[in-house]
Amino acid sequence: VTRCRRLIASPRFDAAILLVIVANALVLGAETYPAAVDAIGDELRLVNDVFLGVFVVELLLRIVAAVDPAGVRATARGFARNPWNVFDALVVVASFLPGLRENATLLRLLRLARIVRVVRFLPDLQVIFGAVLRSLPGVASLAVMTALLIYVYGMVGWVIFHDHDPEQFGTVGSSMITMFVLLTLENLPDYIAGGREVSDWTLLFYLSYVLVASFLVFNLFIGIVISSMEE
Amino acid sequence: VTRCRRLIASPRFDAAILLVIVANALVLGAETYPAAVDAIGDELRLVNDVFLGVFVVELLLRIVAAVDPAGVRATARGFARNPWNVFDALVVVASFLPGLRENATLLRLLRLARIVRVVRFLPDLQVIFGAVLRSLPGVASLAVMTALLIYVYGMVGWVIFHDHDPEQFGTVGSSMITMFVLLTLENLPDYIAGGREVSDWTLLFYLSYVLVASFLVFNLFIGIVISSMEE
Amino acid sequence: VTRCRRLIASPRFDAAILLVIVANALVLGAETYPAAVDAIGDELRLVNDVFLGVFVVELLLRIVAAVDPAGVRATARGFARNPWNVFDALVVVASFLPGLRENATLLRLLRLARIVRVVRFLPDLQVIFGAVLRSLPGVASLAVMTALLIYVYGMVGWVIFHDHDPEQFGTVGSSMITMFVLLTLENLPDYIAGGREVSDWTLLFYLSYVLVASFLVFNLFIGIVISSMEE
Amino acid sequence: VTRCRRLIASPRFDAAILLVIVANALVLGAETYPAAVDAIGDELRLVNDVFLGVFVVELLLRIVAAVDPAGVRATARGFARNPWNVFDALVVVASFLPGLRENATLLRLLRLARIVRVVRFLPDLQVIFGAVLRSLPGVASLAVMTALLIYVYGMVGWVIFHDHDPEQFGTVGSSMITMFVLLTLENLPDYIAGGREVSDWTLLFYLSYVLVASFLVFNLFIGIVISSMEE
Ligand code: NA
Ligand code: NA
Repeated sequence: VTRCRRLIASPRFDAAILLVIVANALVLGAETYPAAVDAIGDELRLVNDVFLGVFVVELLLRIVAAVDPAGVRATARGFARNPWNVFDALVVVASFLPGLRENATLLRLLRLARIVRVVRFLPDLQVIFGAVLRSLPGVASLAVMTALLIYVYGMVGWVIFHDHDPEQFGTVGSSMITMFVLLTLENLPDYIAGGREVSDWTLLFYLSYVLVASFLVFNLFIGIVISSMEE
Repeated sequence: VTRCRRLIASPRFDAAILLVIVANALVLGAETYPAAVDAIGDELRLVNDVFLGVFVVELLLRIVAAVDPAGVRATARGFARNPWNVFDALVVVASFLPGLRENATLLRLLRLARIVRVVRFLPDLQVIFGAVLRSLPGVASLAVMTALLIYVYGMVGWVIFHDHDPEQFGTVGSSMITMFVLLTLENLPDYIAGGREVSDWTLLFYLSYVLVASFLVFNLFIGIVISSMEE
Repeated sequence: VTRCRRLIASPRFDAAILLVIVANALVLGAETYPAAVDAIGDELRLVNDVFLGVFVVELLLRIVAAVDPAGVRATARGFARNPWNVFDALVVVASFLPGLRENATLLRLLRLARIVRVVRFLPDLQVIFGAVLRSLPGVASLAVMTALLIYVYGMVGWVIFHDHDPEQFGTVGSSMITMFVLLTLENLPDYIAGGREVSDWTLLFYLSYVLVASFLVFNLFIGIVISSMEE
Repeated sequence: VTRCRRLIASPRFDAAILLVIVANALVLGAETYPAAVDAIGDELRLVNDVFLGVFVVELLLRIVAAVDPAGVRATARGFARNPWNVFDALVVVASFLPGLRENATLLRLLRLARIVRVVRFLPDLQVIFGAVLRSLPGVASLAVMTALLIYVYGMVGWVIFHDHDPEQFGTVGSSMITMFVLLTLENLPDYIAGGREVSDWTLLFYLSYVLVASFLVFNLFIGIVISSMEE
């Protein structure tokens, strides 16, 4: 147990696993090239299984390192204290479920999940992520306001345009998606031209939205960045 | 009166009203889906009326809570001190005006106004809103400058292009809208290509505008955000 | 002289002139609507001349206020000490040049110049403008770097694309304009698709440019805003 | 040697070389205009060679200034201590390689490299560049996260769209380029419309990406700017 703990705490162990994850990412990428699959598809599949084997060993080491003389339950609790351990266990166990192995898409997403494990090895990132999470309550009102704005303009957009442009404004759902995407200001001139065919007053609708919404989103982004940087 | 005041001051009361507003928003949204209207249109209308009833009761409670032994006028003044009370009263009273009930569009906008009441229950938002409002005088010159820039470039754009592109530059109104939308940089390459068909000098027109205007707007946004954050 | 000085220093005088400028802007705008010109074109022209008369009077008052007992030269020097006085004099005198009155476009631009005089009455704006000007040396290197980047990528773009896309990259001039407009990221996917028809390596050209250039411009904008805010 | 050192350390020397570089840039630009090449092509080529001669003399002066009585090796080491000296030497020597002179494209890029030497004469720029470089480790996690995001969304995009849109999502390479370019938000509505033809769930794919990725990139840019400004 102690040797296991020392092993998984060593920077070399982290570096080795990191290397396997990066290699795994490259192999998954290679499998999207038909030429590569035709030429060395079997080898890629084999390497994939080897990588899975490495992750199984890593998981076992982490379980052994968590062993607690107080019993299985205490061990499980100790192991689960790090949410990444739970994520790893799920990803590895799921790889052996018979149902999943048959579903090509699910299997691919599962393999992708193994790459996401890389986040575990970037301590800075978890700090940043935590800082962003803690800064969210401070900007919650702005986020609610943005959502309210999208809802209200989505409803008004539906009232104005649901007959003229059913694809973009047919239901409040489409309408809110349209307003959300409009936050990127993309295709604004097209929307304005389409709106003016209905009435020149729709200009007020679009211009007020763009002015208020882009300011809100800007404020929201700055707010999160500044308050998470202060930590 | 005292019990009314205690009731409407309790967080539970706020939470309950907030819940009704959110449910009302969902119902209004559902009414934009033809399938939902066909299946449960009557129920949705009924629920809408129930929500209106809740808002009537809420309004009455707030009026009672504002009762002042000094008479009706003092009561009205106390009630109107909170502008949201006035907004609520207008929205609820308007819902019972005979003319409005017949006009489908106005009725829909009125129902939407009830959702906007959610802002009342977000105290942070009112603080932010106040901070933004107080930061506006500090950036008034920048805003006037942006407006002047849009006016001057709109006029120059009209002088150059009103014969070649009457849709975008036909009058100073269209021209200023075109310049305002150009602040988003959307379709800039199209405008430049169109301009070069008139003269290569129009490049100076567009490039100088984009450079100066995008800097001004950036400065304006940063100015408002920074000065409202300092509070 | 003293009364003149007291008059032009009074806030009422400024407000009156400001009002005339805004009214003048509205009249100039109205003249771009054919319907308005047909209906009240003569009146608009008359009002324009009245406004010009007001500006002549204003200019005379400012000259009188600058009168110096030391002689004409000292008066002229005192008057010219405020560059806005010179601008005003030029704009007003040019309005009476016989050649200009015949050229409709020049006359319109001249009238527009009278509107620009509004900047004189916004003291904050001159402070901001001064602050921005003083912050420019601090970001001169970044600006030179951006220009160098546009030049180098413009030249490389010309080398790669001058045969395939002569409209966008035919000469170093077109090429640099293309790269400058690309700073807005507008139509980037189209350029990338066009580039990949030549060679996949052009991706490096576009992606490196977009990454470096958008960072530089962002840095430049932030740099100017921050250093001009510190004042 | 001492006179050489004094000469190349004088601001006049720098100004003269800077002038030659700017003139060289103009000449290279002029050579992209067919009309100019027809009219004064020989002169431009001659001027180019004169500029090259100036750079050869400049290089020789810098070498002489680096002469160390301790011998050739010490001289070379002293000369190479400034990486710009090495860059200059490479650029000048390469201009005389027989193979290069025949390859028009390489020769043009080489001439362009002489213009890049201008960076040497902008000390501020090197400070900024150094500050940006030193701020990179602090945002490395964010950069890795952005890369991971592009990789994961690229893979998921490939899984979803490789049959429906092989041009944009045919391999993980194309897919990642598509996701990278999507960071500019350009053509987002087109992608969303294309995605909804496959499934409405693809909305989640695009919206989550745009929200998270644009925040990450914003954070990354702000992070670099702020931490490099603090210096
Ligand atoms: Na765009
Ligand atoms: Na855009």
